[in-house]
Amino acid sequence: MCDHCGCEQRTKEVEIQKHILSANEELAAKNRAHFREKGLRVLNLISSPGAGKTTLLEATIDALRDEIPLAVIEGDPETERDAARIRAKGVPVVQVTTGGACHLDARMVHRAFHQLEGNSFRLLFIENVGNLLCPAAFDLGEDLRVVMVSVPEGSDKPAKYPAAFLKAQVFLITKTDLLPYFDFDLEEAKRLALALNPNLRIIALSAKTGEGMDEWLALLRDLASS
Amino acid sequence: MCDHCGCEQRTKEVEIQKHILSANEELAAKNRAHFREKGLRVLNLISSPGAGKTTLLEATIDALRDEIPLAVIEGDPETERDAARIRAKGVPVVQVTTGGACHLDARMVHRAFHQLEGNSFRLLFIENVGNLLCPAAFDLGEDLRVVMVSVPEGSDKPAKYPAAFLKAQVFLITKTDLLPYFDFDLEEAKRLALALNPNLRIIALSAKTGEGMDEWLALLRDLASS
Repeated sequence: MCDHCGCEQRTKEVEIQKHILSANEELAAKNRAHFREKGLRVLNLISSPGAGKTTLLEATIDALRDEIPLAVIEGDPETERDAARIRAKGVPVVQVTTGGACHLDARMVHRAFHQLEGNSFRLLFIENVGNLLCPAAFDLGEDLRVVMVSVPEGSDKPAKYPAAFLKAQVFLITKTDLLPYFDFDLEEAKRLALALNPNLRIIALSAKTGEGMDEWLALLRDLASS
Repeated sequence: MCDHCGCEQRTKEVEIQKHILSANEELAAKNRAHFREKGLRVLNLISSPGAGKTTLLEATIDALRDEIPLAVIEGDPETERDAARIRAKGVPVVQVTTGGACHLDARMVHRAFHQLEGNSFRLLFIENVGNLLCPAAFDLGEDLRVVMVSVPEGSDKPAKYPAAFLKAQVFLITKTDLLPYFDFDLEEAKRLALALNPNLRIIALSAKTGEGMDEWLALLRDLASS
């Protein structure tokens, strides 16, 4: 065995990773119990940077704000830009700046949730750090995990980045207004995602034109009244 | 202190992360020496999924293949799709399937490099896993680190995902053919990136229309003859 390969190191890393994940599971279960006790319904939005998470939240707030009390936890490696966009909509928001870390974990969400105390809301959106990989491994205590792929990213993404699809309940294909300009095969994206997770609810939408938004909003209304 | 917060756990995680990174630095230094000894020049391409890394490589191979011997290491969480695209161009390629892991590390590159033995080449492209965050922390032993953001992702990305920009030498703004359809501010993207790293060489290009490709190819010719 080549001495560059560091197999012992690798084994150690895997053990440590398991430990981190199992500690996160415990905290996520506590979050989940806490959210239930407070009568909340919580969504965890996972996608690459630029897939349109914040834009979708802005359109969702515009549509639902007078109907369902909402709040948002924003995760980013750096900057308060996304929280500022949500705050401009008049919705309670906490920005978690991870200092470069590649995902939110249950502990960060727990802390952010306490910063929202004093506000009254029914639906809590957690916008994860822009990353289609690492957030998939970290349960935050959410009721609904939503994975998003935008049309410019390409319809092969479910096959190449399967982890996020395996544990999600909803798959949003975003920016469908761009379909005429891209070689994105809607049926391929759906087929690849359903092959990984046959129970996925799939909605193709555009926050810009409003296409598909009715189905997304109906899903949120159902969740809020569940 | 709230007992959900797990601060001891966090300290332990940070220590372990430091250990993993320092082990990676050692292996990256070995890779670098090895590449130099073999007379190679090596590039590490970092971006989110769908920013156009493989498409750029295809266009680069078409332009340079008769002039400079090339090879490619492809990193993906799953599938051999990208390697198949490069292989179709007749260039030696090794696919590293990370099994979900969010970045390539120096050990994976070392192993993949040995699988390329028997081929003769001068420029080696390493296409990292699609992720703008985690790959930034892992030196692979490359000569040139290239960070890419595509027009659909938005011009705020350097501010929100700074790590990849801090250690890169080149910043490619890709898919410039899409500028008419997106609210992407080229000057903002450049300004934010240069604020992080004033020595960045920035090239805006489209592999589809060929705009900006001359500057990218000239940079590669200079690197190959250095």
